Amino acid sequence: MATEIVIGIDIGGSLTKIGLVSRDGKILDKKIFHTEAHLPYSDFIRRLKKEVDGLTSKLDAKTHILRIGAGASNANPLTGNIENPPNLKWGKTIPLVKSLRKNFKLPVTIANDANAAALGEMVFGTAKGMRNFVTLTLGTGLGSGIIVDGTLLIGEHGAAGEIGHVNVDPNGRMCNCGLQGCLETYASVTGIRRTVFELLANMREDSSMRTYSFEELNGENISDAALEGDIIALRAFEKTGEILGSKMADTVAHLDPEAIILSGGLSKAGDILLKPIKTSMKRYLFNAYRGKIKVLLSKATRSDAVLGPAALAWLEIEKRES
Amino acid sequence: MATEIVIGIDIGGSLTKIGLVSRDGKILDKKIFHTEAHLPYSDFIRRLKKEVDGLTSKLDAKTHILRIGAGASNANPLTGNIENPPNLKWGKTIPLVKSLRKNFKLPVTIANDANAAALGEMVFGTAKGMRNFVTLTLGTGLGSGIIVDGTLLIGEHGAAGEIGHVNVDPNGRMCNCGLQGCLETYASVTGIRRTVFELLANMREDSSMRTYSFEELNGENISDAALEGDIIALRAFEKTGEILGSKMADTVAHLDPEAIILSGGLSKAGDILLKPIKTSMKRYLFNAYRGKIKVLLSKATRSDAVLGPAALAWLEIEKRES
Repeated sequence: MATEIVIGIDIGGSLTKIGLVSRDGKILDKKIFHTEAHLPYSDFIRRLKKEVDGLTSKLDAKTHILRIGAGASNANPLTGNIENPPNLKWGKTIPLVKSLRKNFKLPVTIANDANAAALGEMVFGTAKGMRNFVTLTLGTGLGSGIIVDGTLLIGEHGAAGEIGHVNVDPNGRMCNCGLQGCLETYASVTGIRRTVFELLANMREDSSMRTYSFEELNGENISDAALEGDIIALRAFEKTGEILGSKMADTVAHLDPEAIILSGGLSKAGDILLKPIKTSMKRYLFNAYRGKIKVLLSKATRSDAVLGPAALAWLEIEKRES
Repeated sequence: MATEIVIGIDIGGSLTKIGLVSRDGKILDKKIFHTEAHLPYSDFIRRLKKEVDGLTSKLDAKTHILRIGAGASNANPLTGNIENPPNLKWGKTIPLVKSLRKNFKLPVTIANDANAAALGEMVFGTAKGMRNFVTLTLGTGLGSGIIVDGTLLIGEHGAAGEIGHVNVDPNGRMCNCGLQGCLETYASVTGIRRTVFELLANMREDSSMRTYSFEELNGENISDAALEGDIIALRAFEKTGEILGSKMADTVAHLDPEAIILSGGLSKAGDILLKPIKTSMKRYLFNAYRGKIKVLLSKATRSDAVLGPAALAWLEIEKRES
């Protein structure tokens, strides 16, 4: 019997991940390489072609590749371009769909990487069976994807779901996007690092955090310290959860979702983060929603990054089949 | 030729409005009466029946009533009930669909009044032809409706679109809902009255506002004073617009709409409100949206309140026809 697969591609600022993914979400083969976003876009496409061909050349004749799904920060499904990406130095408008179609002679669907991640959760992951939910990816930044009635919310200009850039404090932290006080400057791995440094400046307590430079500090060592009872690390998680929980209540007041699902580096801290989030969200939640909104941790791992783009491709295929 | 109409009913805390509405949005006849929400629900239904019958008894035999559309604060389309309404003293769960079906022997569709208003704008009003937009009704409170891809966003539990209850300030004003610092305590007619009183307390300037009691103060006299250059009234509009604009930027970061449409008493102030809103929104807007999001004033008048519920009914009819 013939096997049908799609190619899922996740283009990140540092790593690009490729996966051959079956309809039931099995990753049959995969490859990760450095995006090297400082080199020209044509170099990236050449490398991508080489790596994809490397994977597909191993397939037998009975395996049919149906479609490519690709996710990248600021990828716009309405234009087919990556637009003004903050982490890719390839220009203002990168014709992703056009390049992929030309190089692979396959139909292509693209989406913002965080939006694709939401589809991955719906089709293969923690949100299986859900029709209304929001995913927040707490990594270097804060990416988000909104699913309404089983469909990805795209918006009028293809740019819905930028919850990382709702405002926490007009006089708050400088954001990479040029604004000040965006949620992602607080609720992300980078955000909690900034919070730890703020607390180290403001508090007097001893802390293992005092031995790290800003560059050395990361989600894992802050989590580890918190688990060992480090007061600065714990307070940093509390503050992060407090801010994120209050903004999650605002998101609920827009969308009334079944669940908000947290993924990404910071979510690995588990209950240390989840507890202050839930306390804070409860405090700010409008009464119509109380006791109704789940806050869940994603079961996805880092290598599952290709499942979002793959889900994007599979959903498009199913839409065309029906 | 036979005429087809629907009955649009808008149940407000003080007034209930009934309209017989044709498919093209013409209000053929209408009636307004006091809701008298302090009396039992059965009294309200009896009065509603009398008034609706009064209107429909005048119709000729060629006019067919196809459906009732009803809007009320906290009406839930998924359950058919009004749930925990803050302004109607009829209990926690009011079986609106059931009562209307029983009394009028017609199919019934209900929605939250502010959600219905969004549909009214889409089908008959300022948002004609738009697929993605948000309406904010700035009246006693702040009601909102979200349209995504031409469909009302209902949410998992039937309660999406409560933008009036996103948080402006954790230590801010007490809200009727029990929370503190909700947007509607600032950006509504009641909100600007509170702001005027705050400014009268904090500032030293002369102002015609100083001659009014809190009860006497309303949207019109604050607008009028602002138009005459009253510094307190002007500052109140600035502050209101500042807060509302920043939260509208947050809404855009969720939904990426084509437009946000303002209606209700406070919106009648026009440019005095619109200008600070636009300035503030621009300041907080994520770069992907800049220059793309329209902020519009609704053309709807008070008597158009039945058009929202009527649109709800007509959309349901068209869904069933197709």
